[in-house]
Amino acid sequence: MEDTTAPSVTKPIRCIVKLGGAAITCKNELEKINEETVDIVSSQLREAMVTGSSSRKVLGMDWSTRPGKPGISCDADDFEDRNLDSSSFIVVHGAGSFGHFQASKSGVHKGGLNKPLVKAGFVATRISVTTLNLEIVRALAREGIPSIGLSPFSCGWTTSERNMASADLSMVARAINSGFIPVLHGDAVLDDLQGCTILSGDVIIRHLAAYLKPEYVVFLTDVLGVYDRPPSEPNAVLLREIAVRDDGTWSVVKPTLADTNTQVEITVAAHDTTGGMVTKISEAALIAKLGIDVYIVKAATTHSSRALSGEVRGAIPEDWLGTVIRFGGKGNGFPTSDTQLLQSIEFYKSSSTSLKEFN
Amino acid sequence: MEDTTAPSVTKPIRCIVKLGGAAITCKNELEKINEETVDIVSSQLREAMVTGSSSRKVLGMDWSTRPGKPGISCDADDFEDRNLDSSSFIVVHGAGSFGHFQASKSGVHKGGLNKPLVKAGFVATRISVTTLNLEIVRALAREGIPSIGLSPFSCGWTTSERNMASADLSMVARAINSGFIPVLHGDAVLDDLQGCTILSGDVIIRHLAAYLKPEYVVFLTDVLGVYDRPPSEPNAVLLREIAVRDDGTWSVVKPTLADTNTQVEITVAAHDTTGGMVTKISEAALIAKLGIDVYIVKAATTHSSRALSGEVRGAIPEDWLGTVIRFGGKGNGFPTSDTQLLQSIEFYKSSSTSLKEFN
Repeated sequence: MEDTTAPSVTKPIRCIVKLGGAAITCKNELEKINEETVDIVSSQLREAMVTGSSSRKVLGMDWSTRPGKPGISCDADDFEDRNLDSSSFIVVHGAGSFGHFQASKSGVHKGGLNKPLVKAGFVATRISVTTLNLEIVRALAREGIPSIGLSPFSCGWTTSERNMASADLSMVARAINSGFIPVLHGDAVLDDLQGCTILSGDVIIRHLAAYLKPEYVVFLTDVLGVYDRPPSEPNAVLLREIAVRDDGTWSVVKPTLADTNTQVEITVAAHDTTGGMVTKISEAALIAKLGIDVYIVKAATTHSSRALSGEVRGAIPEDWLGTVIRFGGKGNGFPTSDTQLLQSIEFYKSSSTSLKEFN
Repeated sequence: MEDTTAPSVTKPIRCIVKLGGAAITCKNELEKINEETVDIVSSQLREAMVTGSSSRKVLGMDWSTRPGKPGISCDADDFEDRNLDSSSFIVVHGAGSFGHFQASKSGVHKGGLNKPLVKAGFVATRISVTTLNLEIVRALAREGIPSIGLSPFSCGWTTSERNMASADLSMVARAINSGFIPVLHGDAVLDDLQGCTILSGDVIIRHLAAYLKPEYVVFLTDVLGVYDRPPSEPNAVLLREIAVRDDGTWSVVKPTLADTNTQVEITVAAHDTTGGMVTKISEAALIAKLGIDVYIVKAATTHSSRALSGEVRGAIPEDWLGTVIRFGGKGNGFPTSDTQLLQSIEFYKSSSTSLKEFN
């Protein structure tokens, strides 16, 4: 039984943003941040949160030293006449090349804290993912975003047989009410039944969306969006709009697929070789079913900038590249092309391993 | 009104350890960890927690990369036959040269989150103190201690007019019940009345002690203990044992001071130039009043090792250097030399500034 206290949020949440692990870290390189992408994304987030902020001097909020970087200057006077109010965003990030090695080496997702290796792996995993969290918080703060790191473990989030069991949203709500931007992440957490597991960023997003009802949700990833097959294949088609019906069935609204008998495959993002995109779409569909539009878009592009600002809400502009997943009303009960889509998802699900856990 | 849920701890807490900011960081050098001290303290903690662990290979639990350091090797097989059970410790650390700059520059301790500078300073302070927390967690994990970072902010700890208002101990308790060593720290937190403030490590320790009833508490600092005057002065005498009575009065039990009319001054630790030691003693006295012995001892010495292991409990050995603060029974109502001690504390209190906040 899930135990989530409905939080009291005095400011409406405009957007929940997922920074995909594949986008913010360098694939195949252990614990390396994709600094360029993170810097651009942070800047885009600032512009989306604080209208008109692009024309003014950025007032950084990371006043700490960084090895090999110039010292941070902080002039108190700069802050005097500035209005730092921003609309309410929540940031959730995946792990990418952080945490995966530690989690998969020890099997943290499978539980068993009585095993020394799992216990050590739990510690090692949390060190790795909180290292990334701190770096993301700092990158956002350097852009003047009042970011506050919130580890799901520390917030008291737990699971029961890998499903969300308890998720206290009170600190997320209090941080928002105080004008901060909470930054959560995929984390190793305690599990009532199996001892411990990995709570993925995508599950966290869905949970936050269900309780905090943002206006829209944006998933920033390392491909343009969802394709009908791996994007490396010739003739891969970007799915621009997917409708999710209340009975859980889906259909591709745009483009109209020329041949509905073609096996529709879900693209797997470059780094998420084991099912990441499938989890993402499944979670996105559950959010869309709540009536909240979900945008899946490539990080650090003009497309991500437009999605974050909310500019593409409503009718999707022709020149915007990405996938929007929306609530499409009542299901008609007839199998359509999304049957293949779902079969494809099932296939990926069954082949997935621990590595997808964080996404 | 303080709102603390009494946690359910299935394992008795043996010891709560304070790693003083002055001991674990390099004074006067912005955000620099005293690596040598931290490494020795981590090793002493391991030996205190896991009896007999000194004779076996240390199984590190930090499997993350470190700039300029050799990669971490992790052999899963090493963990197979190991019993990693340890007695329950809780670690709380101060901030030292982390956080102070950011907090004092912005006045976070005075509150006022509506002021842009305070809001930015809150973000900057949390970045700095969580950076230190991560490093301490990693140092402990490298010594094979299953350490888990827990930020008071993230745990939902808040204050009301700078006094503890809400401190959810459930995650501390759950971490302990699962065999982990929680590592908390002085933090910037939200305050019901003034918006925000700094919650010091010493206040956290007292709170944990009151609710979790450890067998003993150890404060690791950068001087041998509490002196009758600044230790740099000639003739400064180390106070070996202080008794705290239930009416709040104190007396120095050992050594017997030759001249009780001498003004007794409280030494101020080198880095805590604005009253740190006073806060420490006041908090230590409140813990001692609960019937829990408090040891104030210099970090990374044989004395700290003996205090952590519990070896000096009971009669204090002659060759142990440090200060023990104990409950001394019912007050006698007569003014004794501790009157001067208390007056001295009052003097330091009134001259203290924000810099002492974290201790």
